[in-house]
Amino acid sequence: MLDTGGQKAVFRAEDFGGLEQRFRTQLINSMPGIKALNLVGTRGEDGAENLAVFNSIFHVGANPPYLGMVIRPDSVDRHTWQNIQATGSYTLNSVGPEIYRQAHQTSARYEKSQSEFQETGLAAEYRDGVVAPFVGESLIKIGLTLEEFYRVACNGTLVVIGKVVYLELEKGLVMSDGSVDLVAANSVGSIGVDGYVSVDWLDRLGYAKPDMPLRSLR
Amino acid sequence: MLDTGGQKAVFRAEDFGGLEQRFRTQLINSMPGIKALNLVGTRGEDGAENLAVFNSIFHVGANPPYLGMVIRPDSVDRHTWQNIQATGSYTLNSVGPEIYRQAHQTSARYEKSQSEFQETGLAAEYRDGVVAPFVGESLIKIGLTLEEFYRVACNGTLVVIGKVVYLELEKGLVMSDGSVDLVAANSVGSIGVDGYVSVDWLDRLGYAKPDMPLRSLR
Repeated sequence: MLDTGGQKAVFRAEDFGGLEQRFRTQLINSMPGIKALNLVGTRGEDGAENLAVFNSIFHVGANPPYLGMVIRPDSVDRHTWQNIQATGSYTLNSVGPEIYRQAHQTSARYEKSQSEFQETGLAAEYRDGVVAPFVGESLIKIGLTLEEFYRVACNGTLVVIGKVVYLELEKGLVMSDGSVDLVAANSVGSIGVDGYVSVDWLDRLGYAKPDMPLRSLR
Repeated sequence: MLDTGGQKAVFRAEDFGGLEQRFRTQLINSMPGIKALNLVGTRGEDGAENLAVFNSIFHVGANPPYLGMVIRPDSVDRHTWQNIQATGSYTLNSVGPEIYRQAHQTSARYEKSQSEFQETGLAAEYRDGVVAPFVGESLIKIGLTLEEFYRVACNGTLVVIGKVVYLELEKGLVMSDGSVDLVAANSVGSIGVDGYVSVDWLDRLGYAKPDMPLRSLR
């Protein structure tokens, strides 16, 4: 950290390599903002169920609906990736305040033979047409099929793109214009590798146009 | 929407195409969870400054530090992408409650000759070694250089990976273990295309191990 003598901490490219590893991991993972938190459910060809917490889900397209996520194939994510490759199927399951501790616990290094569903007490549920298991406790259940993947050249992580083939949620969570009320769903957000936050509405804002005042939608 | 007669809304792959376009956009963009909100600052070869709001930033690696984002090259994002290709430089700037309205306003379809800094009143600031402009009002300022990009085959969007070459934030926001306190930073989260939320701490949880109870870090 370059101490400028003031209130600011400044890090330049050459500073990151010298940081203590866990400090750097915490810093870099938390700085870009509040992240989406999902439990990813998969199933091996032998039927063994796997559940893993991810905070790297991102929007890729709405028509048809595609979502992306980052997988580190050398980490605890590897069972998730093996199963997605084997079956082409995976699920995203929302995390509320009553299950974020179980969600975090899925990041422990269990053996492949151990099911994180069983170890954490979360309920595996199945839906017609989706091979991978959903989390019964999750208010928003998304089923995907593997569409494509890309290995990032600079560090070997995988960017995985899936097509949404199933969506299930409480009717009351869908606002009249289609937006999901994630505040009403008590959706938990993620900070870094171990932080969990609740959210509250500030506002929804109408379509922005040059030289027009913004309209609040709430 | 498949009315199952109960409290659940269920959509299957074949249902999404038939949804009204804006309804589908809202639904698909909001369902995956709370997203990171950042202003992306760029500068053209002619020096013209551009600022655009993004909620598709994701973690790719910590050592060296890499971040990813999704760019739709046919949308208002195109000026951002043109500038990144021209200069190899871009910045991510955090959004607090005092500037989320200006952040949203940058999504208006301004001409390339119009600077979103000027149009929204946000301050463009420069730092040694980073070509692209930062947002003066942002508490967390991240400078990146373009590392690689990948065009998603299924719908043509770009996945852009950048290397973090600069990080500036208030010293008081960095906790002793390196994690950035995004709650203290009043970091605003994003829902869908137009929703803004405040966040509050639920907890931080220690490293998870099989058969060990989780430890709260707060």
